[in-house]
Amino acid sequence: MKTQAALLVQTGQPLVLAEIETPALKPGQVLVEIAYSGACGTQVMEWRGDKGEDKWVPHCLGHEGTGTVIEAGSAVTKVKVGDKVVLSWIKGSGIEAGGAVYDWDGKKVNAGGVTTFQRHAVVSENRLTLLPPDLPMDVAVLLGCAAPTGMGAVYNVLKVQPGDAVAVFGTGGIGLNALMAAALAGAMPVIGIDPNPTRRALAQIYGATHVIDASGDVLAEIKKIVPQGVDLAVESSGIPGVMDQAINSTRQQGGRAVVIGNAKHGAALTLNPGVFNQGKSLLGTWGGDSVPDRDYGRYGRLLSSGRFPVRDLLSKPYSLAQADQALQDLAAGKVGRPLIDMSLR
Amino acid sequence: MKTQAALLVQTGQPLVLAEIETPALKPGQVLVEIAYSGACGTQVMEWRGDKGEDKWVPHCLGHEGTGTVIEAGSAVTKVKVGDKVVLSWIKGSGIEAGGAVYDWDGKKVNAGGVTTFQRHAVVSENRLTLLPPDLPMDVAVLLGCAAPTGMGAVYNVLKVQPGDAVAVFGTGGIGLNALMAAALAGAMPVIGIDPNPTRRALAQIYGATHVIDASGDVLAEIKKIVPQGVDLAVESSGIPGVMDQAINSTRQQGGRAVVIGNAKHGAALTLNPGVFNQGKSLLGTWGGDSVPDRDYGRYGRLLSSGRFPVRDLLSKPYSLAQADQALQDLAAGKVGRPLIDMSLR
Repeated sequence: MKTQAALLVQTGQPLVLAEIETPALKPGQVLVEIAYSGACGTQVMEWRGDKGEDKWVPHCLGHEGTGTVIEAGSAVTKVKVGDKVVLSWIKGSGIEAGGAVYDWDGKKVNAGGVTTFQRHAVVSENRLTLLPPDLPMDVAVLLGCAAPTGMGAVYNVLKVQPGDAVAVFGTGGIGLNALMAAALAGAMPVIGIDPNPTRRALAQIYGATHVIDASGDVLAEIKKIVPQGVDLAVESSGIPGVMDQAINSTRQQGGRAVVIGNAKHGAALTLNPGVFNQGKSLLGTWGGDSVPDRDYGRYGRLLSSGRFPVRDLLSKPYSLAQADQALQDLAAGKVGRPLIDMSLR
Repeated sequence: MKTQAALLVQTGQPLVLAEIETPALKPGQVLVEIAYSGACGTQVMEWRGDKGEDKWVPHCLGHEGTGTVIEAGSAVTKVKVGDKVVLSWIKGSGIEAGGAVYDWDGKKVNAGGVTTFQRHAVVSENRLTLLPPDLPMDVAVLLGCAAPTGMGAVYNVLKVQPGDAVAVFGTGGIGLNALMAAALAGAMPVIGIDPNPTRRALAQIYGATHVIDASGDVLAEIKKIVPQGVDLAVESSGIPGVMDQAINSTRQQGGRAVVIGNAKHGAALTLNPGVFNQGKSLLGTWGGDSVPDRDYGRYGRLLSSGRFPVRDLLSKPYSLAQADQALQDLAAGKVGRPLIDMSLR
């Protein structure tokens, strides 16, 4: 079938709204009518070419969304036609059916196992999870990336305990999910650090007991709140100097910082290796070590608990034709988490 | 009482064998007649001044040993006169009684809560653990530092599982303890990496299934053995470039490397921060996260199990007067773990 997609045709150039033809489904593939897509720093990096040369252009974009199954390929057992689903780049159970190739007036358009900047997408079964009950489809796009990364970093990687002192460096979409996760688990204090006053104000709404302006002497400010350093830190800015701050903000003999910010291609992180001899650790993670089939239900309950105004984590909706604007606004820090609503024309 | 100690009087200069006077015991302090002392890279660094300016000279040295309690200060309950004990820098239960100050012909000689390059030492109760049964007093010096650091890094920090692929970078005293720990837990393969052929040969005796010359292309050699990278890596060289190799040697999505080598003061570690986005972690530890009262019994059972020739981990014994030579030989890589035997004159 014909559908519409916002494509990356050349890095550094505006996205192109194109009519493309979906391919026939291979075993394990599912055709989803997208309701909402989120947008994330990863798409900004792809769009800017921050990840280095892009060998896949022209290609589809987007790795978090929600939608309705309209056709299931052979061998698919996890979902059926009519199911509401979450689309996520994090692999869960089900078939890994590989990427899809669309046709654009005779040209090939590449796509990974999941893409969402389009009205209809061919998705691998293992990137789909049934929508948790009671969670609106717009809010549920958070389950595609920001919630599993931010909440998973706090629950699965850091394994926060009640009373742990937690610092979150960078309070954009993923950082705010980490803040909420820490607050919901009883962490205290929960310190949000960001250079942007709008994002600091958001941090206070989403669970921060204290906020610090990242342009000041952050480590000195943290010491005023927790003299021995925090137990746990979350780095969500992707900036090497902030990763260094994050590990240095933790206490000796067991302090742990987790990196969930995406570093630019070619970036270099310089650390004093003595921090490791002090018993501090710098942890990496792949999607917050989240397992969709295990974790998305509980993340969904936390998001729909009413403790935090989670709908406001998402921007006013953009139409698909405005997807380029959404990435521009995200890159400029004007919005936390852009929401693309396919029903808008 | 008068006793003899090998003192650091000036960094970079030979140790001085001196007659010093032990102070009266404070509450929580214990007077131990030392039987054996080990020596570790930490003493080499102190002796060379690699940790920066030393404000404590003249001072006693040594942080691992065994001996017999000959006097217990007030409030001491963990040990009594006549007990055979392990002396360790790692804190266990009992009173933290602070450092001791000895008298050397009217000059003050500083010492921490535990020192061992001397015939008698005033030690804090919390640095003593009862000698495990069936473990000879010479072998038991390994429990003071090398075993808890090396074994603890593998068991407590990395939490090795049977079948995990493990690489150990640097197969000196602590690295060999990590190798043994991995092998005893069923890790496979267990890869030892060192530039020194003598130490590579030792690695094969102490559990390495493969050895790699560190002067070659280590990552390529590891890939030949484990194409996806190892599950776990131990860095025991203290060299920043090797820390970078260690984290890069691990697999994506969950690979973990632990740093147990001591970095020189002022060293800088440069990493590609993208390794954290690949889900790899670089862990620090303080003494292998070992808890003496919990762990030294089981480490003692492993050491005395007969699976490995653990006595050979220690050098031919040096006398106390040869303590300086012991550090020289350790610094030159001529011995793995020097043993100082106080019964030698």
